[in-house]
Formats: sequence, C-alpha cells, structure tokens
Amino acid sequence: MKAKTAGASKTVMTDLVLPSETNPLNNLFGGELLARMDRAASIAARRHSRRIVVTASVNHVAFNRAIPLGSVVTVEAKVSRAFRTSMEVYIDVWIEDRESGERAKANEAIYTFVAVDETGRPVAIPEIVAETELEKERYKGALRRKQLSLVIAGKMKASEATELKALFV
Amino acid sequence: MKAKTAGASKTVMTDLVLPSETNPLNNLFGGELLARMDRAASIAARRHSRRIVVTASVNHVAFNRAIPLGSVVTVEAKVSRAFRTSMEVYIDVWIEDRESGERAKANEAIYTFVAVDETGRPVAIPEIVAETELEKERYKGALRRKQLSLVIAGKMKASEATELKALFV
Amino acid sequence: MKAKTAGASKTVMTDLVLPSETNPLNNLFGGELLARMDRAASIAARRHSRRIVVTASVNHVAFNRAIPLGSVVTVEAKVSRAFRTSMEVYIDVWIEDRESGERAKANEAIYTFVAVDETGRPVAIPEIVAETELEKERYKGALRRKQLSLVIAGKMKASEATELKALFV
Amino acid sequence: MKAKTAGASKTVMTDLVLPSETNPLNNLFGGELLARMDRAASIAARRHSRRIVVTASVNHVAFNRAIPLGSVVTVEAKVSRAFRTSMEVYIDVWIEDRESGERAKANEAIYTFVAVDETGRPVAIPEIVAETELEKERYKGALRRKQLSLVIAGKMKASEATELKALFV
Amino acid sequence: MKAKTAGASKTVMTDLVLPSETNPLNNLFGGELLARMDRAASIAARRHSRRIVVTASVNHVAFNRAIPLGSVVTVEAKVSRAFRTSMEVYIDVWIEDRESGERAKANEAIYTFVAVDETGRPVAIPEIVAETELEKERYKGALRRKQLSLVIAGKMKASEATELKALFV
Amino acid sequence: MKAKTAGASKTVMTDLVLPSETNPLNNLFGGELLARMDRAASIAARRHSRRIVVTASVNHVAFNRAIPLGSVVTVEAKVSRAFRTSMEVYIDVWIEDRESGERAKANEAIYTFVAVDETGRPVAIPEIVAETELEKERYKGALRRKQLSLVIAGKMKASEATELKALFV
Repeated sequence: MKAKTAGASKTVMTDLVLPSETNPLNNLFGGELLARMDRAASIAARRHSRRIVVTASVNHVAFNRAIPLGSVVTVEAKVSRAFRTSMEVYIDVWIEDRESGERAKANEAIYTFVAVDETGRPVAIPEIVAETELEKERYKGALRRKQLSLVIAGKMKASEATELKALFV
Repeated sequence: MKAKTAGASKTVMTDLVLPSETNPLNNLFGGELLARMDRAASIAARRHSRRIVVTASVNHVAFNRAIPLGSVVTVEAKVSRAFRTSMEVYIDVWIEDRESGERAKANEAIYTFVAVDETGRPVAIPEIVAETELEKERYKGALRRKQLSLVIAGKMKASEATELKALFV
Repeated sequence: MKAKTAGASKTVMTDLVLPSETNPLNNLFGGELLARMDRAASIAARRHSRRIVVTASVNHVAFNRAIPLGSVVTVEAKVSRAFRTSMEVYIDVWIEDRESGERAKANEAIYTFVAVDETGRPVAIPEIVAETELEKERYKGALRRKQLSLVIAGKMKASEATELKALFV
Repeated sequence: MKAKTAGASKTVMTDLVLPSETNPLNNLFGGELLARMDRAASIAARRHSRRIVVTASVNHVAFNRAIPLGSVVTVEAKVSRAFRTSMEVYIDVWIEDRESGERAKANEAIYTFVAVDETGRPVAIPEIVAETELEKERYKGALRRKQLSLVIAGKMKASEATELKALFV
Repeated sequence: MKAKTAGASKTVMTDLVLPSETNPLNNLFGGELLARMDRAASIAARRHSRRIVVTASVNHVAFNRAIPLGSVVTVEAKVSRAFRTSMEVYIDVWIEDRESGERAKANEAIYTFVAVDETGRPVAIPEIVAETELEKERYKGALRRKQLSLVIAGKMKASEATELKALFV
Repeated sequence: MKAKTAGASKTVMTDLVLPSETNPLNNLFGGELLARMDRAASIAARRHSRRIVVTASVNHVAFNRAIPLGSVVTVEAKVSRAFRTSMEVYIDVWIEDRESGERAKANEAIYTFVAVDETGRPVAIPEIVAETELEKERYKGALRRKQLSLVIAGKMKASEATELKALFV
C-alpha cells in the first residue's frame, strides 16, 4: 500500500449553530460539537483508508471557548498518523465573527478510528506522509498519545511507554 | 455550602438506538454516544450544583463495543468529585440483550463541567461525599486526572503533578 | 413462563427539554412528551417480555403542568400488569427545579403494548408480580381499564364489564 | 363571540413516514404518530380560537393498524366541540396504498386543548356549529367524554355524569 | 393508461414553523421551506403516478415573504402536467395570521419529478386532465417551462423552443 | 466599501448522507440537498457581506445524479456576483466514491441572498472581484440570470432584458 499525504485526507465542515443545538446560555452544547467533530473526522479517516471506519477513541478534549447561537463553525479534520489498522485524526475548530470576519480557534480534538471491512474486522491501511511543520509535529506526538491510550487501557505498562515517560522524568 | 453525596447526583438516561443515529455497519455513531453522555452528565452536574453548567472537557473515551441499531442503551452519570467551581462526572454506559436480558458494559467516560451564573461566570459549588467503594476510588482518581488535564493544557509542569507522576516512576 | 416482578421492568429516562421541542409559550409540546413516554414505556415492556413490542393503545392522558424549556424531565415506566400477549405500562413524569432541587409530579400516563415475534404475530409473555402498595393498586386497576378499552372498542358490552360497571352503579 | 363551523377548523397534514421514525419492524412508532396528531390538532384548535393553545389531554387512542416506512400518512383534525375555554379536537388518520391509491383508516384520536393568552391564562372561545352528520355525532359525544375526563380526574362523581352513566345502566 | 385529473393529486401539508427551522431573524430558513415543498410535491407526484418518484429539478423559486417562527404554513401541491415519464408539480404556500385568521400567499414553486421502478428506471405515467381555469393555465405553461429547462441543460437549441421564444420576440 | 474577491467567500461543507435523509431508493432526498445548499450558500453570502442574509430566490436546479446513503457529499459555495444589496451564490456539489476516492460532480445550483440589517431592511454590500476563468464566466452570466428573474417576476419586460434576449434571437 502506497503512503498518502496528511493533506489528502483534509476534510472541512462549515455549518451554522442552530437553535436546537444550544444550551440555556445560548451556546452550542459540548455534546453536539463532539458529534460534529466525529462526523468530520470519520470522513477524513475514510478518505485516507478508503474503508468503512469506526470511532475507536477520543482523546482529552477541552472546551475553551463558548460558541454562540448563529455562529459559523468550521471543523477541519486531517489524519495525523496511521498505524497498522488505526488512524489518529486531528481536528481544529474555528468560529468566525460575522462583523469583522476574523477567525478564532475554538477547539482542538483528537479522535482515533479503526478501518474495518464489511464484517467489521480491522484491515490494514496506508501510512501517512506528514509535509508541513504542523503535520510533522502532530505525526510525532501521535505515538506518545497512542502509548498513553494503551497505558490507560491497561494494555501497556507505564514503564514501557518510552516516549510518554520522557515527559515526566 | 453543605457537601452532598455522589449518589444524590445520579442520573439515568435509558433510550433506544434509532436509525438516524447509526453508521454503515448499523451501529450507533461514536459522536451520538458522546452527545448523549454529555446530556446525561450535564444533568448530574446540575443536580449536584443547582447551577447552569457548561462542558469544560472530556477525558479520553474508548469505544470498546459496538452498539447495534435497536439496542436499549443506559447512560448512568454521577459526579465523582467537585473542585471549587468544577465537577468531574463519571459515566457508565450499558447495553442489554433483548432476549437474555443481560446487561453488558459498553463504555466509560469522564466529563468535566463548570458551574456558572446567568452571565457565564464560574461559581462555587458544594463538595462531594463518596460513599461506596467505587465512588471512593473514582473520587481519588479525579485528582490525578485533573493534574493530567493541567499538564496537557500547559498550565502545570509534569514534574509538579505528584499523583500523576507516581504512575510513571 | 416464570412470572417477573413489576420492578424488574422499571425504566428511567432522564433528559432535558430542548428548544426544538417547545411551543410558543416555551413549554414542552404535549406531543413530544407523548413520544418520549412511548419510548420509555416500550423499553419497560420489552424488558418484561424480552420480545419486540408495539404500542397498542394509550389511555387517557392529562397534561396538568407545563414543562418549561431547559427543565430536567424524568420519565419512569413500569409494567403494571401483563395479560396473555399484552402489557399495561404505567408512566410517571417528574420535573425538578434547578435551584431547589425539588421534584414535582408533572404527568401520569398508561400505555398498552403487545409483544410480537419477528413477523408481527402476538406471542405469550410472563405474568407480573406486584410487590409495593402502589404496584398492587395499579395491577388491580389494570383489569378495569382493560374492560373500558374493550367497551370503547365495541368488543365488550358495557353491562358485562363487571369491574368497570361497579364505579357507576 | 360568534359561533364558527367545525369545518372552518379543518386541518390536513399529509406527510411521509421517514426512516428516523420507525421501530424494529419498520413501522411508524406510536409515539411519533401521537406527536404528529398533537401538532395537527393544535393547529385546528388555533384556527377555531385564534389563540395560543396548549394540549390539556388526550383521550384513549388505539393503534389498530401498523403504518409502514415510506407510507403517505394523512392526519385530519377538526374541532368537534368547544366548551368555555377548551376544545375537543377529533383526529382521523389515513394511510394510502401507493399502487392502488386506496385510502385506509389507520387511527382515530381525540385531544383536548385550552386556549390561553400570552401569560398562559385560559380565555373564552367561540362555540362550534356542527353541520354534517358525523360532526353532529361527534359534537354530541364530546359532552359524554368530558364527563369521563372529569370522573377520571376525580373532579366529578361518577353518579353525576348523566350522559356517561347512561351507557352502563 | 387512463388520464387522471390534476385535482386527484392534490396534497395538503399544514404544519407549524418550529424553532429548529429558523434563522437569526426568527424566520423560516429558505432551505427548510424547499425541503417541505419537496416532500409535499413528491407525494402529489406519487399520487398521480402510483410509482416511486425522484426529484428531477426545481424551477426558479422566489422567497417574497418572510415566514415567522410559530406560523401555520400550508403547502399545497398538485401535478400540473405529465409528460411521458416525468411530472411538473405546482406548489402554493400559504401562511395564516393567528389573530385575524387571514391567509396570505407566501410562495409559489415548481418541481419536476420522474416516476421510476424499483431499480430506478423511468416508467410511463398517465396524462393529466386540467379542469379549473388555473389548472389549465398551469398545464399550458408547463410546456414552455420544459423547453426552458431543456435549453438551460443544453439539450435543446433556444431557436427551437417555439413556445419559449415567443416571449422574447 | 472595498470590493472583495469571490474566493474570499468560499464555503466548504462536507458531510455524510444519513439514513433520516433518504428516500425509498436509499438516495438523498432532493429537498434535503436543497436545504444543505441553502445553509452553505448563506454562509458564503454572509462571509462576503458580513451581514445577516436571507434567501431571496433559487434558480433552476437539476438533480442529475442520485446520491446514495452513506455518501460523502461536499457542497462548495462561492459568491459569483454582488449587486447593490443582493448576491448571487454559485454552488457545486460533489460526491466521492469510498473505494476509488474519485470525486464526481453531482449538482450545481444558484441561490440569491439579500443582505439585511437587524430590522430586516436591505443594506448595501461590497462588489465582487472575479479572479479565475470560472469565476469570470459565472460573474458575467449572473447579469443575464438576474434579468431572467426580473422577467419571470414581471418586474422587467422581456424586450428590455438585453443580455437574456441575445440568447434567443
């Protein structure tokens, strides 16, 4: 299988915040944003793998900035690294001010997907070629995050998670 | 403010998996489950704080088990620990087999909420009293997870995250 | 088939009132509450019968109390009595005040479900064992309500509806 | 206030059964039909009263006929009788066969609405003039049904419900 | 195949404007109205053809009048002319004032549908008999509009579109 | 007001086709696509004008290609020309094959929006600078289409629509 660039999986989902998606402060529900990011990220994963993909995990997501009713929200998803049958997808969320037109970063999130066949069995996928500085940085961090997942899931000992451990000692 | 038990915030949301929420393999979309968990957890946080609550972050979530169309899904959320203005909410997701009636664990997730007033400013909330073994364990782990969040957000040095560091060295 | 307790079918569905479900007075549409109660009650009926269930009828439902936007609504459903292939499900609806935390009864409703096989044919189901005082009272009333349904449907003469007739003479 | 004909309130809502509204047998959920009937009936009540209207109660509804995915469903609602501030609305539900074009009766239901002002207080409404045979029959039956509601709600003694009692003795 | 009257396909879809369908000015989104008109028109096309129907095109639609939140909107669709396997459907949209009860025209639109078999292949359909003055006028205009479509699609030369050309020279 | 490039308004909305949006042939409803295109186009119009925008009209839209359930659909919208207070937005719809990754054109559509202030009154907007060949061609065609709209609406005589007339004589 031929490796593909991260850029080839780039998925952009721009949409409005509708009244049915807002909380009592008239801001987008965290849960709705998580659902939108899942849809955008799954498309990026599918573009890379050309397979059916299923969400395997979501990394820590911080909601730093409220997204008010009527906002234009842009969710950009790109595969940051591919492992044998799974992919890490990095998601950036932007909102823009109607009057000034300025874009501001609202969120970042990292989802992991597994590529499967029609019966749900994992299948091998192409590798990722990181091109830009940001893509390279995220590509590198993906391994550390994978180790963290394995440690949390009890499938790897913390002491063996070399990249991760380096952060703490 | 008088401390309240974890049990007092317990929120149960049982519902069906509808066709509009499923992927090409006829299983619940990861994003939809994240949205349901957010709604249930926000109710638990609101029951504890009696305030408007907004999602602050979601911890690492693993989707270990597919949830097929037509399943009965039970989302149970309980505040595991309260900090000054924020709460960690622990969520357990169960599905049950229609024919045997057996319940199986499908997911666990941890969301953090901030209590705010009508203008969106954080407000102080009561402490949590953990009663059962499981509640005590989750109460204890919450501090470690908070440190991890702070480290990831770059607001605490890894070397100062005492509880967290203990895992790796 | 072994009888099962009413409690074993208990289903709790706690959720928020969203903006897309409210009328011009900003209260939950009656029709939306009817739909939620149907979903919760069908899960209770399915838990008792372990079969596919279809709604057969809804008893008289009174909407005594408006349920405002943003409320936390708890729908609790429990099978009150099983007949040969059908079940009566009793539903209690509660709303709670965010500030005081007090729960108030908002509604009661009674739905009837039929258990069917994959082809839609009615199948026999276990009996119900009523344990609490309330369960016993509802179990007893279920027969009277069944007679009323049959009379209304023209399948039983009013003069033969012994339990029902006793109310009027 | 000038009386208005029943026909003037007639409301027709024809729509498809969509995949998101169906149960595991691929038929319309009972709860979804209850919600559609509530919307159609509330429009009829609003047309008669020219007021904001809120659902007060739903009479016994029987689901005699499954409504399959893709069906064309016609919900017809008409005010059958007006009391001082409330209206009974009679609803007929039809489905039609795509190939033969034949319409078949799928359901009947009776909802009651209260007309209110902007603050939610009940307001007086015009009377109904029944014109057709069916309208007259339903107009007459409405009083009996109102008595049944009052008896069930414990607001009238069964022995005083003259029209209703006549059915049983 | 026996010709059928335009009136026999008449489809009425009356419904409320819900909060989830409105823009920042609290009026119905143009796109939502387009979707409702498509559903109503597809039912009219299906009633005429008794076949599965798919949207082939939408003519120029002007949104002359804002439709505010809470409005009662009536979409009326009727087949105006049938060609060999396709139908033109004319749609009139009305809104009514709650207080005065007056109906006002909000929109007109023209959709074209193709009748297909289960495999998606076009199938022949009955002709339309126009009865009223308006039906006759729309029947006649349908041919001109079909020519315009063909010219726009590059499937007919403008110079051969006799009826259409007559408008400009 | 400074003119802005067409490219600056470009809006990309990539999303899946969900089961609740499909017809009996399991293809996306025409009406749903019209609604998505309206949302994407309104964001492009808003990006150009930095104003609230409302849909004024939709040009002739042809649905040449079925879009099956599960497809990835990309809606790209760009302002093609600005008039004093209104904008023409050109929309291109693409679907892509999961296995080959090939993109195919599924639709084109042209919507017109009016920029308004908070009270709904039209306001002046910047002009468009067309840069690419395609943008220039669409910019030029926009005037002809505007004339056609005015002729259809009876606001311009066909004989005065110079650009349009040139097509037919």
